[in-house]
Amino acid sequence: MLGSERIRTLSYEGGIREISERAASMEKAGRDIVHFEIGQPDSDSPQNAKDAAIDALRRGKVAYTPRAGISELRKALADLEETHGIHSSWEDVVVTCGAVEALMTVFLAVLDPGDEVLIPTPAFPAYFDQVRLCSAVPISVPTAGDPDIDAIEKLVTDRTRLVVLNSPCNPTGHVISPECNARLFDLAERRGLLLVSDECYADFIYEGRHESIAAIPDARNRVFVVSSLSKPLSMTGWRIGYVLCPPAFRSFITKAHQILTTCACSFAQAGAVTGLSSLKETTSSMTAEYRERRRLVLDGLSACDGLKFIPPSGAFYAFPDISALGISSMEFCAELLEKEGVAMVPGDAFGAPGHVRIAYTTSKERIRDGMIRFVKGWNRLATGRE
Amino acid sequence: MLGSERIRTLSYEGGIREISERAASMEKAGRDIVHFEIGQPDSDSPQNAKDAAIDALRRGKVAYTPRAGISELRKALADLEETHGIHSSWEDVVVTCGAVEALMTVFLAVLDPGDEVLIPTPAFPAYFDQVRLCSAVPISVPTAGDPDIDAIEKLVTDRTRLVVLNSPCNPTGHVISPECNARLFDLAERRGLLLVSDECYADFIYEGRHESIAAIPDARNRVFVVSSLSKPLSMTGWRIGYVLCPPAFRSFITKAHQILTTCACSFAQAGAVTGLSSLKETTSSMTAEYRERRRLVLDGLSACDGLKFIPPSGAFYAFPDISALGISSMEFCAELLEKEGVAMVPGDAFGAPGHVRIAYTTSKERIRDGMIRFVKGWNRLATGRE
Repeated sequence: MLGSERIRTLSYEGGIREISERAASMEKAGRDIVHFEIGQPDSDSPQNAKDAAIDALRRGKVAYTPRAGISELRKALADLEETHGIHSSWEDVVVTCGAVEALMTVFLAVLDPGDEVLIPTPAFPAYFDQVRLCSAVPISVPTAGDPDIDAIEKLVTDRTRLVVLNSPCNPTGHVISPECNARLFDLAERRGLLLVSDECYADFIYEGRHESIAAIPDARNRVFVVSSLSKPLSMTGWRIGYVLCPPAFRSFITKAHQILTTCACSFAQAGAVTGLSSLKETTSSMTAEYRERRRLVLDGLSACDGLKFIPPSGAFYAFPDISALGISSMEFCAELLEKEGVAMVPGDAFGAPGHVRIAYTTSKERIRDGMIRFVKGWNRLATGRE
Repeated sequence: MLGSERIRTLSYEGGIREISERAASMEKAGRDIVHFEIGQPDSDSPQNAKDAAIDALRRGKVAYTPRAGISELRKALADLEETHGIHSSWEDVVVTCGAVEALMTVFLAVLDPGDEVLIPTPAFPAYFDQVRLCSAVPISVPTAGDPDIDAIEKLVTDRTRLVVLNSPCNPTGHVISPECNARLFDLAERRGLLLVSDECYADFIYEGRHESIAAIPDARNRVFVVSSLSKPLSMTGWRIGYVLCPPAFRSFITKAHQILTTCACSFAQAGAVTGLSSLKETTSSMTAEYRERRRLVLDGLSACDGLKFIPPSGAFYAFPDISALGISSMEFCAELLEKEGVAMVPGDAFGAPGHVRIAYTTSKERIRDGMIRFVKGWNRLATGRE
């Protein structure tokens, strides 16, 4: 049989690629497409980060760095996590090639074949695929809002090793409440579980506040915090992520990272150190802009009779429930793309049929236009009339 | 138990880190150290590659690239492999974060837990650790010179999936002969095996020539070629490697890469395209320099009574057999470091006790000095006299 069993169990589609490829080919043919499918900021990276990377290139900083990253960057990241109330040593920070590699190092360091991982769903699809790539078993826990602790506990077996948290959540924008974090940590203590907390969108908060589960006293020994500079500094192409790991896992995470990629790009790391010095200004201006974009999306969704949605507290996504139409989310996305020129990702990709993900990573002007088209498409499908 | 079984089975030492940390602390304390332990070129990256990366940063090329890499780079790499006699489509090239990630994508795409991988040894230690990280079983095949086909065939079981080749070899510098390649491919055909050919040092040849096993007609369907720009363009910190994969594995390798790191650094990819345009000039001047360095190392080794070595045909390492001294290679390396200030890697790290790896990645002046010290240390240990 061609390919390992693990590689054949991965999901190759889920609709994201169909939609983005179709959108690209329509655009090539001259159609005007509003891009609500793209999960990355539309701004350039901070100038000071770019200048520092350029300077590093000029100075010949082109060799391997220490495996866990340059110490300046690890220290800056530990300082950043300190502002989230997480007390750590900078030596617990391992710099990776993006948050995706960070997640993979954790799964490899914790999971053996057959181990089980509980994933509150809707969720970022890579969690499922990465766990499968470890020949381990991802188990979806259907959730609306805060992860359902009772449902999670019911699924714990003697093979359960990890629960994956994502706050703010991609795709729902939900921010986990401090009460839920406390109950999750209590469950982890009682049942001997480890926790992964993916906090890639922690800087994008519109209502309430983000509190990391790793800030709970004693939680550092059970929680792997995974994050990256991709979203808050609009540095997706730099591939700079990190794990803040329990001290006992330092050598395991460093070794897994060494084996996966050796180290992150040397001059990208140098630029990231400088970029972090202006993180607060960058994210506060980004959040102000995204708050207005979010408002435009929610106004559009509110104009759709029968469409259900929970206003997202964070990230830069809305995740409305379109099931009232009685068609699949893929059918809905295909219709909206073909007829209205609006590209979105079907919820099936996130384990949530009947939903669609709208990323507000394009200009307010384009969002206004896109939401007019969305409402028009919705109304046609809901009423059967143009 | 802390950590997965797979992570606990990895080798955490092998001597490389002890030696390099001890060398660094001695240097800090004012000792003059000749660095023969460093497996990366001492030159800067090509100026045109750096300029192109800087230009990409300035132009805002800071977002995710296509998962398999930007098409310009994949095409340039397919063209490069064409010059090695390997006919492929550029769509069979997947750009990764270094050759290490490239290897890992192959192991994940081919191996399930319990599968066996045959590794002619001495070998790059990551092969063993990466296979173990897949919960698969690395099996060493002791080899001097060309891989021993009969020994390999005797070890083939119904769980054997892969044989890992590395030509020129790190640490021995051996270049596999065309006759051996033909026999290896024949074995793979008869026994239904896949092959990984790590060709990271293909541009560093001092005697004879490198012929890729993937250049054998029909071999493309069985051979994964893994390489990187780290060594030939002195771009280790850029993290640009690649897999040239059998066409049937395209989607598997791309998916594994997506799940490990999403994509390589965007502006590093842009710089790599331009750097490749001057690969021939860069490597021919590097090889001329390394040829002289190699001569100095071999002259020094020849002056050591009782020391055995095979002159390396490629790469930038010598791998002498020091077993005549009756001490371990770690003891030898520790003695040479403490008494002579020469840092080298013990052969145990490569599965070859009784040997040491000398990397000639430092200036001729330093190599001359280092080899005088080496001979002095050898003579003292061999004769018991200063």
